[in-house]
Amino acid sequence: MYAAEEPFWGKTLRLIRDIWVSGDAEELKDKVRPNLPDSDLSRLRAAINACLEGRGGEVSARARAAQLGRAYLVLDPEGRQRFLELLVKEYDVDDAAVDTAIEKRNAALESDELYTANLELRDLLEPPRARLLRQFNELKEGVKFLVDLRAELLSMVKENPSLRPLDKDVLRLLVSWFDIGFLDLQRITWSTSAAILEKLIEYESVHAISSWKDLKNRLRDDRRCFAFFHPRMPDEPLIFVEVALVNGISGNVGELLDVDAPVGDPEKADTAIFYSISNCQRGLAGVSFGNFLIKRVVADLVAKLPNLKTFSTLSPIPGFMQWLTTTTEPLGLSKNEQELWDTVAAAENPREYMKELIAGDTEENGQVVEAALLKEILMKLCARYLVESKKGSQALDRVAHFHLSNGAQIERINWGGDLTEHGIYQSGGIMVNYLYKLSQIEKNHELYTGSGEITISSSVKKLLKS
Amino acid sequence: MYAAEEPFWGKTLRLIRDIWVSGDAEELKDKVRPNLPDSDLSRLRAAINACLEGRGGEVSARARAAQLGRAYLVLDPEGRQRFLELLVKEYDVDDAAVDTAIEKRNAALESDELYTANLELRDLLEPPRARLLRQFNELKEGVKFLVDLRAELLSMVKENPSLRPLDKDVLRLLVSWFDIGFLDLQRITWSTSAAILEKLIEYESVHAISSWKDLKNRLRDDRRCFAFFHPRMPDEPLIFVEVALVNGISGNVGELLDVDAPVGDPEKADTAIFYSISNCQRGLAGVSFGNFLIKRVVADLVAKLPNLKTFSTLSPIPGFMQWLTTTTEPLGLSKNEQELWDTVAAAENPREYMKELIAGDTEENGQVVEAALLKEILMKLCARYLVESKKGSQALDRVAHFHLSNGAQIERINWGGDLTEHGIYQSGGIMVNYLYKLSQIEKNHELYTGSGEITISSSVKKLLKS
Amino acid sequence: MYAAEEPFWGKTLRLIRDIWVSGDAEELKDKVRPNLPDSDLSRLRAAINACLEGRGGEVSARARAAQLGRAYLVLDPEGRQRFLELLVKEYDVDDAAVDTAIEKRNAALESDELYTANLELRDLLEPPRARLLRQFNELKEGVKFLVDLRAELLSMVKENPSLRPLDKDVLRLLVSWFDIGFLDLQRITWSTSAAILEKLIEYESVHAISSWKDLKNRLRDDRRCFAFFHPRMPDEPLIFVEVALVNGISGNVGELLDVDAPVGDPEKADTAIFYSISNCQRGLAGVSFGNFLIKRVVADLVAKLPNLKTFSTLSPIPGFMQWLTTTTEPLGLSKNEQELWDTVAAAENPREYMKELIAGDTEENGQVVEAALLKEILMKLCARYLVESKKGSQALDRVAHFHLSNGAQIERINWGGDLTEHGIYQSGGIMVNYLYKLSQIEKNHELYTGSGEITISSSVKKLLKS
Amino acid sequence: MYAAEEPFWGKTLRLIRDIWVSGDAEELKDKVRPNLPDSDLSRLRAAINACLEGRGGEVSARARAAQLGRAYLVLDPEGRQRFLELLVKEYDVDDAAVDTAIEKRNAALESDELYTANLELRDLLEPPRARLLRQFNELKEGVKFLVDLRAELLSMVKENPSLRPLDKDVLRLLVSWFDIGFLDLQRITWSTSAAILEKLIEYESVHAISSWKDLKNRLRDDRRCFAFFHPRMPDEPLIFVEVALVNGISGNVGELLDVDAPVGDPEKADTAIFYSISNCQRGLAGVSFGNFLIKRVVADLVAKLPNLKTFSTLSPIPGFMQWLTTTTEPLGLSKNEQELWDTVAAAENPREYMKELIAGDTEENGQVVEAALLKEILMKLCARYLVESKKGSQALDRVAHFHLSNGAQIERINWGGDLTEHGIYQSGGIMVNYLYKLSQIEKNHELYTGSGEITISSSVKKLLKS
Repeated sequence: MYAAEEPFWGKTLRLIRDIWVSGDAEELKDKVRPNLPDSDLSRLRAAINACLEGRGGEVSARARAAQLGRAYLVLDPEGRQRFLELLVKEYDVDDAAVDTAIEKRNAALESDELYTANLELRDLLEPPRARLLRQFNELKEGVKFLVDLRAELLSMVKENPSLRPLDKDVLRLLVSWFDIGFLDLQRITWSTSAAILEKLIEYESVHAISSWKDLKNRLRDDRRCFAFFHPRMPDEPLIFVEVALVNGISGNVGELLDVDAPVGDPEKADTAIFYSISNCQRGLAGVSFGNFLIKRVVADLVAKLPNLKTFSTLSPIPGFMQWLTTTTEPLGLSKNEQELWDTVAAAENPREYMKELIAGDTEENGQVVEAALLKEILMKLCARYLVESKKGSQALDRVAHFHLSNGAQIERINWGGDLTEHGIYQSGGIMVNYLYKLSQIEKNHELYTGSGEITISSSVKKLLKS
Repeated sequence: MYAAEEPFWGKTLRLIRDIWVSGDAEELKDKVRPNLPDSDLSRLRAAINACLEGRGGEVSARARAAQLGRAYLVLDPEGRQRFLELLVKEYDVDDAAVDTAIEKRNAALESDELYTANLELRDLLEPPRARLLRQFNELKEGVKFLVDLRAELLSMVKENPSLRPLDKDVLRLLVSWFDIGFLDLQRITWSTSAAILEKLIEYESVHAISSWKDLKNRLRDDRRCFAFFHPRMPDEPLIFVEVALVNGISGNVGELLDVDAPVGDPEKADTAIFYSISNCQRGLAGVSFGNFLIKRVVADLVAKLPNLKTFSTLSPIPGFMQWLTTTTEPLGLSKNEQELWDTVAAAENPREYMKELIAGDTEENGQVVEAALLKEILMKLCARYLVESKKGSQALDRVAHFHLSNGAQIERINWGGDLTEHGIYQSGGIMVNYLYKLSQIEKNHELYTGSGEITISSSVKKLLKS
Repeated sequence: MYAAEEPFWGKTLRLIRDIWVSGDAEELKDKVRPNLPDSDLSRLRAAINACLEGRGGEVSARARAAQLGRAYLVLDPEGRQRFLELLVKEYDVDDAAVDTAIEKRNAALESDELYTANLELRDLLEPPRARLLRQFNELKEGVKFLVDLRAELLSMVKENPSLRPLDKDVLRLLVSWFDIGFLDLQRITWSTSAAILEKLIEYESVHAISSWKDLKNRLRDDRRCFAFFHPRMPDEPLIFVEVALVNGISGNVGELLDVDAPVGDPEKADTAIFYSISNCQRGLAGVSFGNFLIKRVVADLVAKLPNLKTFSTLSPIPGFMQWLTTTTEPLGLSKNEQELWDTVAAAENPREYMKELIAGDTEENGQVVEAALLKEILMKLCARYLVESKKGSQALDRVAHFHLSNGAQIERINWGGDLTEHGIYQSGGIMVNYLYKLSQIEKNHELYTGSGEITISSSVKKLLKS
Repeated sequence: MYAAEEPFWGKTLRLIRDIWVSGDAEELKDKVRPNLPDSDLSRLRAAINACLEGRGGEVSARARAAQLGRAYLVLDPEGRQRFLELLVKEYDVDDAAVDTAIEKRNAALESDELYTANLELRDLLEPPRARLLRQFNELKEGVKFLVDLRAELLSMVKENPSLRPLDKDVLRLLVSWFDIGFLDLQRITWSTSAAILEKLIEYESVHAISSWKDLKNRLRDDRRCFAFFHPRMPDEPLIFVEVALVNGISGNVGELLDVDAPVGDPEKADTAIFYSISNCQRGLAGVSFGNFLIKRVVADLVAKLPNLKTFSTLSPIPGFMQWLTTTTEPLGLSKNEQELWDTVAAAENPREYMKELIAGDTEENGQVVEAALLKEILMKLCARYLVESKKGSQALDRVAHFHLSNGAQIERINWGGDLTEHGIYQSGGIMVNYLYKLSQIEKNHELYTGSGEITISSSVKKLLKS
């Protein structure tokens, strides 16, 4: 209907036209992945300009932008990078125009014209490419397109920092599109579409889902799973959280994930354990949903299951072993402890050595005593790591920082909470509960974000003093 | 859950607190409408500041913003105006900070820091109140809240131009939230919820819907009705269009609306007549949907009813009679015509006089000749009004301007197309067809927006020459 | 796909074939309504036989039955009656076959073959036409088809009792298809489809819905409306009930229907008043839903609004005035009362006279005393009518009989409960509350259905004794 | 709400009461499974009688029946059998009443009372237990309850033929409830609920689904899967069919199921291969859906994919190898063939021997010639088996009988069509295509069901003659 008058494709891009005729980018994608040679760049420029000028009316301009988006999708990685570089270089802020607008604004100070002058200046400070990004929303899957574009950009930026400004432009747009007020909180159950459940398996980043059976067990009657969705990406969860409804705070994730464990009665549970929270869209890095997700889920649970009184996480300590094996700080151990620790540290692969001690059949080789001592050491040091290791005023551990920012407190440190290979390697098998005490959340948040003060329970205090 | 620590209400606002406890603004709204006395202003400021500073974390800040929104809703008109004035005056751009950022930006020219400096400057040019507006999205009906706030602002601004900057801020936010890519196109039928249908009756602005029977007739098998919806306002149409599926271009809206007319077979129709298009949300004035709506509906109709070949409007000429009775331009009439026209113009109420001639039982009083002559005069002048009367390079008639901007052409002018009281009073009973010829839309648009050139059919050309 | 090999149409039915080709019975219906002349009867027989023999396989047979159904729909009333008469006469039980089966059954008594012999006999006792009726279910709207066929049959049977056996066959099938276990209870609100709401207006049989405004008022926050639907007739309510959520038992339906009355808080209501219950499908006469509807709605209300303690109707007494003006029983009035009553009874139109007394501006003509006395008379007699007038052991009043069978008790008789023209004419303006006391329902039912004993409140007892 | 006045439980059934109070049969099911001792039988009788007499009104009676149903669910296998035996023995047809009704009917012959007398007799021939079965529909999952009850009955009947009459009663009820006109045809895709997809894996009975990956491959773009559902069992498919959209008739199921095969374009396919059709509910044995399913799916495919011209199955021949290794008919082989066949037949395990020849790497052991000859023998005998081996006038092979009854023809016999262990063991690795030629379906059906004549293609004819 709104065929482009001035197609920008050259010889190498001729095949792309077929896409625009057939509308089927998917099909072509695997056949031809042109790399956008120089000879096509001027055609590309013309196409972009037509979009930005609104040639043929706003409806046509949007349709053209969609064509551009589809063209991008058929390019090979090199071609895509050239496309994006063109946007960065040639569709940046117009400095001369900004100069003029600044003068105008300065002249308007104290006058009634100031508001308008400010607006004009502000508009000029938005690079024209940002408008093009918005126009991509015309694509049928425009929101997903931009999220995926951002994911690609994040990969490219590492090696090609010149693309960073474009990354920032995309991020700003995504922040506005993914405002929490637009998202849907949906419960995920075994009756949810397999297409979505499959994505949980793919995206779960804390405790890998090993099979559909494992997944089904996480959706059983005494479990809850919630995800945020965007109305324009209904098949793509943005972030999801897995919750166990139990009695008393759980300290062991293996028990929670045990497919043979009996199913409890959710109506009788007094505690909700948030044991996994995973972001799904790499392209949304920097857009934060987690804090809202936890609190909306808490509100939903409270409304439906009034017996729930306690809301806590069961979390890994992802940076602990890394910190432990590389820190140069004094560890403050007793003599006995220090001796054992020296042995450990002197081992060819200290982390491997610890793993064996933690998980190993310790009796055979008479390591019972060592293991017990190592437990004491690790528990104490873990508490210190969580509470005292900082980057500026922030907790060094990223998971700790997330929950503390949200207003949680460090409630309990659990020895042997995650005895998987990965759990031992990363967290020494230890897990921690962050407690969301509803009445304290604001105060905790203010203390932590204001002065870096971390709220901890008496049991953690005791560990620190030990 | 996230109760405000520092309630800002005073004596007169004490009742508002009950709302926050009960959460039921509706209930209180009719009982108490405080006017926000000076004594409360400092409390209001504290509440706004807490939101903007993100006190207690982003979740709490959002919850507080929602409370502020609910508080706004219980204020009386004077109180609301004071609330908004506070936002305009005290939460405006910080000029000093902008000065500094400009210096920084100027210093960064040619350097790698420029992008960041530009961003900072841009952010500072956004007034803090705009952030608060975004936070209102936390309200359960946050999107509707802002749309309604804008509607109020538009009323206030007329008498209180100092609020204009806030109006602009709200509009910018709404433009971003109501991006066409986020809207759903939905077909409206007699099976649609009565709650939505009731709104069509309320919002129809071209040919009033007189009853549910009239409405049902507009939704019968050979009619179509489509509306845009926002996912966060699912019960509120934003704009809707009514279409008749007929054979050949219709020139008479009375026939289209006749509840006794036989129902045609939509599969056999060759022409879609867009006979009414109405915006529903006053608060979205300035956000344009109409062009997109028409073209999406055309695309939908083409896909489902492949026999449709012609897409045309049947439109009023809302400014014609007003122009005709006040214009001072020479009308270029023949002698005979001019004589009749002088009689008409000399009448006490020329428009009333014409109405009688057009609609009246002309035979009784021997006005047959006069009526025929008046028809000739009005048809000729209507063509001139539509094609030649301009405001700058734009058509003077607002409906003409809308369709011509969209790329339509003036196809046919229809005598007696709308013989209702209103139709005669406004358009001399004449209606016009704007034809959307898909292959010409872009060209027409470019000609019209570029040089003001209006594309017309040969029949309209003939009228102009007569 | 499964075209009939042996079309049964003759000259007059040729047009019907076009339907089968085009599938569009609706279209033809208004053009041609053949009356099924004798020359077509043999073709019709052949078509029915093909269905019953399962010619071409069960799928084809069903398809043929659907064709027959569509053919029926295009016949004119006379043709339809001939069609049905053919079914009654020629597709009845085969008496000779039954004779044989009876012998077989008698011979099998005491043997293992009895069960099979019984089954065979039972199958032979079902007329073949009943199988054809079931096959009509292949029609896209097959369930509705049969319901409508029944409605027509009910009209025909009055003048043509020979059709009664077919009516019974259809009813048996409908009883099985409309088993309460298959029905959906749906709440009706203002957000329900207008197509369904329109039907409420049409079907309401107790207190006519005068307009969409009246309807909307009955769906407001402190009202409830529920209907049963069949999964194969999703746009057609079968029966619906209207409920008001109030405080204390209401005695006046005018107040409940007042569109200007303030909306109460449903959460705070302690009483649910069932003030209207209407059957929607004439063709389902004899299939009872009302008792189930009331009790499912009670269960639903109890679950969602735990403050509700009392469930009562506010009902008309449809047979009261009829009985009063025609009964020959002694009324048992005092002398004063009898004198007034004699005057009333002697009036040219006693019911009209009473209406004036009840509703009239009584002061002008000094009728105050008479009116007060008439009230006493009518209240007392109404109580007697409800409690003591019987047909066998059943209450004479059909509404009373319905609620008493359901286990309700007569709670209160309300003077002036319905002062509409119709209300006064039918019930003397009196309304009655039937109370559903959950703990007493079974006992009341058993008393009433067992011995005809009616449970009444002390206030009704007092009226009876007065 | 409608608590039973006369609970029938005794000591061993006391726990059941808790279910009725808590409504949670699931919970108790694993804890207590009473066996319904004699002491409880009289209580059970009382409860059944209360249902059948409609004690307390029909609503209460239904509620009581639901309680009985829940009670049944907690019984252990022995208890359930006793429950059902009670129904068979004590709630059977009342022979004396039937005797009387027969007399009445005989007396009414030739009179107007005959219809009524027939009806009464018919009603008396329905055992009272059948009414109780219908009342179970009050259970929330009443339809599923009865389907499962039937599945249990089918198991019990084998060892306890006295239950057969009850089985027949249940079947009759299910036939009426599962009339094809009430079923929904739904397409199953990867976006369908995992809970339903899981059931496909469980119920697939032709080519086992080995994993979720296998399942996903069967739902890809060039595949279709459809199932029938009952509106009261929305989570339980009744029967489903898997279809491949390909070009030309497929002869090899391994290729169709290959997860690595490229995905074709469904719009371009000319052939739909029905390669698997599975019944899901054991309790619905005897209720036939397959014929309708195939033809509704064909109609749906034709409407959506107009390029499809050929509709064929790719089917196993489940009885072939069984027949081949046990038949005593002369095989009609040539001398060469007979010699090889004698060797095969003389082998210790002839079927195993053939498997090796069919699947084995034949070159190594010089069996090339033997294998080629065996192929000829098997293909010829397979054709004979399919076309000539009969049970009465029906094809001996049950799959052949199913498709031939539906009006299909035997189109092609495919060597090596299913080289799985199971495929070779059962069908000698051979598969057959049954072609559904729409224009021939009725004729084929009539020939087959009338005279047992099987329609075959010329290629099959050739095989038969070879």
